[in-house]
Amino acid sequence: MRTAIEVSATVRGTTSPNPPVGAVIVDVAGVVVGVGATASPGGPHAEVAALAAAGDRARDGTAYVTLEPCNHHGRTPPCTEALIAAGVAAVVYAVADPNPLAAGGADRLRAADIEVRAGLLADEVRGGPLRAWLHRQATGRPHVTWKFAASLDGRSAAADGSSRWITGPVARARVHAERATWDAIVVGTGTVLRDDPWLTARLPDGSLAERQPVRVVVGERAIPPTARVLDDAAPTRLLRTRDPDAVLSALADCNDILLEGGPTLAGAFLAAGRVDRVQAYLAPVLLGAGAAAVQNAGVGSIEQALRFHRESVETIGPDLLLNLVPATDKE
Amino acid sequence: MRTAIEVSATVRGTTSPNPPVGAVIVDVAGVVVGVGATASPGGPHAEVAALAAAGDRARDGTAYVTLEPCNHHGRTPPCTEALIAAGVAAVVYAVADPNPLAAGGADRLRAADIEVRAGLLADEVRGGPLRAWLHRQATGRPHVTWKFAASLDGRSAAADGSSRWITGPVARARVHAERATWDAIVVGTGTVLRDDPWLTARLPDGSLAERQPVRVVVGERAIPPTARVLDDAAPTRLLRTRDPDAVLSALADCNDILLEGGPTLAGAFLAAGRVDRVQAYLAPVLLGAGAAAVQNAGVGSIEQALRFHRESVETIGPDLLLNLVPATDKE
Repeated sequence: MRTAIEVSATVRGTTSPNPPVGAVIVDVAGVVVGVGATASPGGPHAEVAALAAAGDRARDGTAYVTLEPCNHHGRTPPCTEALIAAGVAAVVYAVADPNPLAAGGADRLRAADIEVRAGLLADEVRGGPLRAWLHRQATGRPHVTWKFAASLDGRSAAADGSSRWITGPVARARVHAERATWDAIVVGTGTVLRDDPWLTARLPDGSLAERQPVRVVVGERAIPPTARVLDDAAPTRLLRTRDPDAVLSALADCNDILLEGGPTLAGAFLAAGRVDRVQAYLAPVLLGAGAAAVQNAGVGSIEQALRFHRESVETIGPDLLLNLVPATDKE
Repeated sequence: MRTAIEVSATVRGTTSPNPPVGAVIVDVAGVVVGVGATASPGGPHAEVAALAAAGDRARDGTAYVTLEPCNHHGRTPPCTEALIAAGVAAVVYAVADPNPLAAGGADRLRAADIEVRAGLLADEVRGGPLRAWLHRQATGRPHVTWKFAASLDGRSAAADGSSRWITGPVARARVHAERATWDAIVVGTGTVLRDDPWLTARLPDGSLAERQPVRVVVGERAIPPTARVLDDAAPTRLLRTRDPDAVLSALADCNDILLEGGPTLAGAFLAAGRVDRVQAYLAPVLLGAGAAAVQNAGVGSIEQALRFHRESVETIGPDLLLNLVPATDKE
């Protein structure tokens, strides 16, 4: 199952609106004979890819899948039928499919005399590769991660607006490396006008990564046609609104969105309760002046403070990276 | 030596202007027969206290001391003479005495045929209990630690000024427990007028700790005679200046000062290069409005950012505690 989780993580950002699923086929002797992950929409699901790799060796083997195999005809036939046809003896999955259309896979498999076991490493899958998709199934909205980099006094730029760089090269390389895992990266027009970012995922050598997320610029101000975000390195969408729910509706097919917007846009998403995770890169720096990382988040007094639960903290060179989720989700 | 370091840490905040030193006497058989630490000014030094505890068992034994034994008549006789009189065979110390008046102890001991070894756990002592005193010996100024508590967006209060509480109870208990280890706690008049703090060291049950640092209020605004900081729980000094060097001159006898002041006072100390360490308590909270932890630190652009070296980071309940020193000191 751990291999299935790992392989599913490699296709994050490429499967929407489908979930990034991983599957591993183990033969009767316990040898891994097939590994697969969800392909782009219209392509094979993870189980089908893993069965194809396994061929005849799947017979009487066990399939490990991060999500309950689907039981419906979408753009591809049901995975349950593929597993039955391949003659596997057992199917182990981590998380049940909450989608009423696709669910029923476990029952279908049991009816075909396949042994079914659910829940293996379920928490790891729920909090990891399938988190955003499960969130979208539960809420109807994409999962939003707000990422910011700031000094210890919470500023994302110095008094004169300069901001390159607050964090160190290792943290910045991490941000680039992770860009390819998002379905979309959202910024405000203010960020485009001020920083003129490319918002592309780049490899350590500076070249473009194979997979690029959709770049999304939100807001009513015009951006110049020469803006880097409009180049042909990746698709770009312009949304003439700053309303978080309007933005999320326009991106309803996305599982996993990265909000990189400036302080006002972040404040609007926070005030609307539309930030599902915060990634805070904190540099060992003090500025004493300059724009705050977030403004107007709807907090008037300390009782209204937006409180979070710390999922993790790690050091990245001189900087810290905190992952946080709203405390009300967990506490 | 580790025992000597530990016992020296227990007298931090009680020995100024003398250093908090620890000493351990081990007899010929390697058994600890005496432990001592620097008493309040005018009382015995660590070596003398440890020798007194050891009595005759010190003869032919070894003395472990965190600082080179002093060789001068101050308010007490030289420790070197006490060690010679006790007949110890060897003296091991961590850090040499940089004070030209008191130095020469090692030479004096060697002249009396005592084996002398220097440098054992020196880094630990230099960065730990003797750090502030060594800083004062080197610079002529007290060592200043600026402590602040803030949200992840760097704010120490919400939009309406409310600030209780941003950090959790465990972090706040830590702050109280550590108050007794400082010689002085410095705040601005603004903090007194706004928060009316006691600034006392309290035990977990809320009662006053036996040892209280001097409370120092700096600034030109008047504070009401009913201010809590003026109660009789601890001594209080009022300094009618906000100039960092004037404040430090007035506190020249202190080794180790905690600056708890608000954003303007902190900015003045940072801009003047008079913050030797930063203790940042960061809570998993976003406010989006409200006073920043620091203002006017003399930074106009990102090139002028005050950069720090992270000494440690730890989680304290939901909060983080970072210890930082100016990067120029180390890098």
